[in-house]
Amino acid sequence: MTALNRKTGEKTSQSPLDRLQSLLESDMQAVNAMIVDRMDSPVPMIPQLAGYLIAAGGKRIRPLMTLACTAMYDGDRVRAHRLATAVEFIHTATLLHDDVVDDSDERRGQKSANEVFGNEASVLVGDFLFSRAFQLMVEDGNLHVLKVLSDAAAIIAQGEVLQLSIQGNLDTTMDQYLDVIKGKTAALFAAACEVGPLISHTDANAAKIACEYGMNLGIAFQIADDVLDYTSTSAKLGKEVGDDFREGKMTAPVIMALEKSNADEREFWKRTFADREQTDSDLVRATAIMNRHGTLQKGLEMARSYAQKAREALAEAPDSPFRACLDDLALYTVERES
Amino acid sequence: MTALNRKTGEKTSQSPLDRLQSLLESDMQAVNAMIVDRMDSPVPMIPQLAGYLIAAGGKRIRPLMTLACTAMYDGDRVRAHRLATAVEFIHTATLLHDDVVDDSDERRGQKSANEVFGNEASVLVGDFLFSRAFQLMVEDGNLHVLKVLSDAAAIIAQGEVLQLSIQGNLDTTMDQYLDVIKGKTAALFAAACEVGPLISHTDANAAKIACEYGMNLGIAFQIADDVLDYTSTSAKLGKEVGDDFREGKMTAPVIMALEKSNADEREFWKRTFADREQTDSDLVRATAIMNRHGTLQKGLEMARSYAQKAREALAEAPDSPFRACLDDLALYTVERES
Repeated sequence: MTALNRKTGEKTSQSPLDRLQSLLESDMQAVNAMIVDRMDSPVPMIPQLAGYLIAAGGKRIRPLMTLACTAMYDGDRVRAHRLATAVEFIHTATLLHDDVVDDSDERRGQKSANEVFGNEASVLVGDFLFSRAFQLMVEDGNLHVLKVLSDAAAIIAQGEVLQLSIQGNLDTTMDQYLDVIKGKTAALFAAACEVGPLISHTDANAAKIACEYGMNLGIAFQIADDVLDYTSTSAKLGKEVGDDFREGKMTAPVIMALEKSNADEREFWKRTFADREQTDSDLVRATAIMNRHGTLQKGLEMARSYAQKAREALAEAPDSPFRACLDDLALYTVERES
Repeated sequence: MTALNRKTGEKTSQSPLDRLQSLLESDMQAVNAMIVDRMDSPVPMIPQLAGYLIAAGGKRIRPLMTLACTAMYDGDRVRAHRLATAVEFIHTATLLHDDVVDDSDERRGQKSANEVFGNEASVLVGDFLFSRAFQLMVEDGNLHVLKVLSDAAAIIAQGEVLQLSIQGNLDTTMDQYLDVIKGKTAALFAAACEVGPLISHTDANAAKIACEYGMNLGIAFQIADDVLDYTSTSAKLGKEVGDDFREGKMTAPVIMALEKSNADEREFWKRTFADREQTDSDLVRATAIMNRHGTLQKGLEMARSYAQKAREALAEAPDSPFRACLDDLALYTVERES
């Protein structure tokens, strides 16, 4: 997890996420304790399965964003812990369901939960965590917060269904792709940020800024993720490289490459994505075609432009160490290696 | 859908559900319109899949209970429509996920949604409907209502996970079975009823009564369902008889039969439930063993005693045609043929 220093361009050992973790150490400890406490149940399979995924780590980026966007406006930390936990539960629930949908066998460097506990348990424990997230929000008791997060949940599910509908469809447009990633990723980033100002004594414009920052950061994050799926290594990703390719996911670098492909290449995309007939060497060829058309690079540039939009939105927020970290996070999200 | 007249014992053509439907006709029309309206989405697969299941019918018993428990206290009908829709969406979402978990191929007399659209779509559209249910509750804007329904959602998921954990486990106790059905079925019945008084100008005791009625009715309903799974016919059920048997579900008549089984019969249960090795004639033998020990009959008696508890709770509610129907519904739920 190395990051680039934005001023010197040199590698630093501390990523903005690490720095946020340090700044918000006691808050994150409270959130981690609450996660463990609230995933408990008299039915042992629930904490076993949820704990298996949660203990495997993950970047905890979404709860950190809730905490940072609350701290930025000096908001209520105790409420922030509860909502950060709710946000992480929604995220965990979607991961559990995603792995069932994608038939994944690896996640966060270990066997995926559905591989270990079965698809059935993953679906139902996902439902449990999702319900638990709503219980946490109801405990918080703010209807505006509830609206932001329940709207996000619906948009996430809608984005996931859209992604499934266009799987392997070579006519997928960049607009459709953006709808998918706004739904499946950016909506929760946006909501995670927006609730921060909502539980702080600040004006409505602060919530708008935080939402815009989160939405654009989420889009940048997902485009970068979709590029990394072709350019990173399994060791860094904690899962196989090329998963999106094998699942026929229509992501930015593929869609842009398709637009520029010659007849031969189109035939290749048709076989591998539409007909889903793939051989071992196809991933290498797919990456070569995208490199030839420069679309992996172009994807990163696109991600960078969304990161820039996120930073511009954030510039309106009051200056603080939290804002500085969130600003760096926007860059980091594109330049990270995993 | 014939029912017994509670006074004469004769068959009447109108079940209490039919009568509730008539009494609440314009409300149910509003609810049906809202169901169609709110399952809509710019992603066509969502209304297609949700509509496939919802158009297939089903008894709409849960929204009817919300409407009746609101009408009984002369509560706000418009709010009742919204909450009845939310309740039906939660129910539909759990059906979609159940069918994935059980690998069902029939539901409501047609191919199950996961058979037609795939497990992936069923999981994700279930998530969408679940989120949409929360959006409807947030629109209603009452935190007490939100608490009742989000608590129910968590208890439902917990009950489903418990059911999965004890599948095929011959040591399952009746207490565990009751925990499962309280979760997977009765909690939503209870919540569907409880929200009625909560949106009416009445005292806290009314909500308690409605909750107790719904909880006991739900338990009675599920025990009767578990008996019908062995005693009804495919044509009446709209799905195969013996589904629970094939899935190794530990239900009341099986658990009670196990307690009385001799060595030979225990060997049979071990093979068919624990080892899940079944031949075509095993369902007939299972039913014969349960009949020999009278546990299908005993299951119905148990269901009747819960129905009686439901009626006793209801007796505290003010007299009205709605109360009369709900009272009859408690009997009907046990004596129905499908």
